[in-house]
Amino acid sequence: MPGADDAHHGLMRQALDAALQGHRGANPLVGAVLVDDNGAVLATGHHRGAGTYHAERDAIESARARGVTDFSATTLYTTLEPCRHEGRQPACTRQILEAGIGRVTCGAADPSANGGGAQLLREAGLDITTAVLEEECTRLNHRWNLAQIQHRPFVTVHLAQSLDARIAAADGTSQWITSAPSRQHTHRIRERVDAILVGTNTAVVDDPRLTARTEDGELAESQPLRCVMGLRDLPRGAKLTQDKPEGQGWMQLRTRDPLEALRTLAATRHNGYPVKHALVEGGQSVLSALFAADLVDEIFAYIAPLLLGEGRSTLGDIGVTTLDEALRFRLDPADGGPVTQMGPDVCLHLTPEGP
Amino acid sequence: MPGADDAHHGLMRQALDAALQGHRGANPLVGAVLVDDNGAVLATGHHRGAGTYHAERDAIESARARGVTDFSATTLYTTLEPCRHEGRQPACTRQILEAGIGRVTCGAADPSANGGGAQLLREAGLDITTAVLEEECTRLNHRWNLAQIQHRPFVTVHLAQSLDARIAAADGTSQWITSAPSRQHTHRIRERVDAILVGTNTAVVDDPRLTARTEDGELAESQPLRCVMGLRDLPRGAKLTQDKPEGQGWMQLRTRDPLEALRTLAATRHNGYPVKHALVEGGQSVLSALFAADLVDEIFAYIAPLLLGEGRSTLGDIGVTTLDEALRFRLDPADGGPVTQMGPDVCLHLTPEGP
Repeated sequence: MPGADDAHHGLMRQALDAALQGHRGANPLVGAVLVDDNGAVLATGHHRGAGTYHAERDAIESARARGVTDFSATTLYTTLEPCRHEGRQPACTRQILEAGIGRVTCGAADPSANGGGAQLLREAGLDITTAVLEEECTRLNHRWNLAQIQHRPFVTVHLAQSLDARIAAADGTSQWITSAPSRQHTHRIRERVDAILVGTNTAVVDDPRLTARTEDGELAESQPLRCVMGLRDLPRGAKLTQDKPEGQGWMQLRTRDPLEALRTLAATRHNGYPVKHALVEGGQSVLSALFAADLVDEIFAYIAPLLLGEGRSTLGDIGVTTLDEALRFRLDPADGGPVTQMGPDVCLHLTPEGP
Repeated sequence: MPGADDAHHGLMRQALDAALQGHRGANPLVGAVLVDDNGAVLATGHHRGAGTYHAERDAIESARARGVTDFSATTLYTTLEPCRHEGRQPACTRQILEAGIGRVTCGAADPSANGGGAQLLREAGLDITTAVLEEECTRLNHRWNLAQIQHRPFVTVHLAQSLDARIAAADGTSQWITSAPSRQHTHRIRERVDAILVGTNTAVVDDPRLTARTEDGELAESQPLRCVMGLRDLPRGAKLTQDKPEGQGWMQLRTRDPLEALRTLAATRHNGYPVKHALVEGGQSVLSALFAADLVDEIFAYIAPLLLGEGRSTLGDIGVTTLDEALRFRLDPADGGPVTQMGPDVCLHLTPEGP
């Protein structure tokens, strides 16, 4: 029945498009589309990050806001099998059952240890279809899945460089290469990650605060755990060790092994939850180590339209000696899109080339 | 009379927008808008490069194609004072007089030695207004004007690099860092420039043909003069010295001084005309020398979404030692726009920050 398959695929693609509206990070990207028994779309939904509605509930609430009360004849398309886990948000299976939705069509299977909710919903009498556009739906979160398998946080990297990929001029000056709009974008990312990580050299040379700040320079409501990776002690008086926004401190990860550092972070709690999303801001050594170990899941590369010639490179040795070994990424359409002009700069959003 | 001024400015801005549809190069960007006596736009026009209609004629012909025959009540807005020079194209003053246009409003004055045509048109009885949005109209071509003053071709630079600004991996492999769509874009630029320039090192290491080729790999109709700058002799059998597309040869500019090389080019004829537009494709030494001497008027930077870590940098020493001395560019909205996705790559179009 190719007609029905086409409709299935078309609606799952709409759910995939909705998923891309979210941010990558602690949770996977998920999108949902709710349709009536004629296949007309009643509402779409997507997940906006830890602590917010899951995509399924977002679609259901959006439909309710439009006056839908009887869900018995509706079908919910979701890019990821609904969860059965009661966490910061109620389980999606419960939301679906309470709404009285008749049919659920899923893309990717839930890879989590306690299993997804498809079987539970089937046992409750719902009509369940799985594995629709399974490959695309799984690929959407291939790096998030890898982070789970590796028991580490999802890693977003911030590169702020000149067109010739320098992060400082020959004399070490680096503030600021990128523009205020680019830096504000970074502050919005800082605000939603669990931890922010730099190397000891950056901590010493730049003496950063690593706080998330608003456009007015005020501390943002949510602050990441501020982490420094490396063996060297920070100097007395470093801003990082003194500023304690909202009573929150900082931590040093005394290792040069990036996976060890990330696993330590995953075992650390911040604001009551484990660290599931880390933003790495530099410098060259930490970034190069993460790239060399294939531990970067997402890049925001802010490119300022200026040239510095000689100076400090964004990256050093990443274990690549010939073009065939290059680390390959692709433009990421999620979360604002693949390419954004930010004031005079251009921000490229990238994720590793998938399987 | 602010109302009339606003209308003037609005129409000149439309002419500026039209100008941006053209390519930078041998000739300045010029746009024109033809309006009736109510200020309604009859046609717009722009210059598409050497050997094609000037913007004024483009607008006039476009209006004729739409059935306009009587131009006596029309006003022609043009970003640049109409030329009075009979060259590959007839003088704009003659076109305007022959069409019988009543009024002409210009932005920038024609800086050329033999003078622009505003006075000539005024003497012929037309109603001439000059210097409307003069600053913007002049800034549009500030680098083209500089190239004229310096008696050198307009210089477009092609950078094809990884995200970390490497043009080769550590072992020297470099073909291909950028994708086929990026390389095809470069071939279309090669086709319209007068000369293409690389350093002797690139000529020896890459052994390029430097021909303009179509997507099918065939020789394009128009071929640039192929030039190598540097003191070193090319090896016997170098492709550049053997392939002679359409009977055209190559030339060596035996100097390390980029301005000297460019002035030699300006004094060289290719296909019967002086070299007015040069495309420089690398490598590191030639590019660095050009940037250091502020001789780059336009950049197409093709960024491939891959990382090479250690390898050959796009640029070496460009005379910048501290951030304040950085060479600053701005995204260029002309000729296809400031940022374009080309297959997996992103192309940034830049021009030096203006006055």
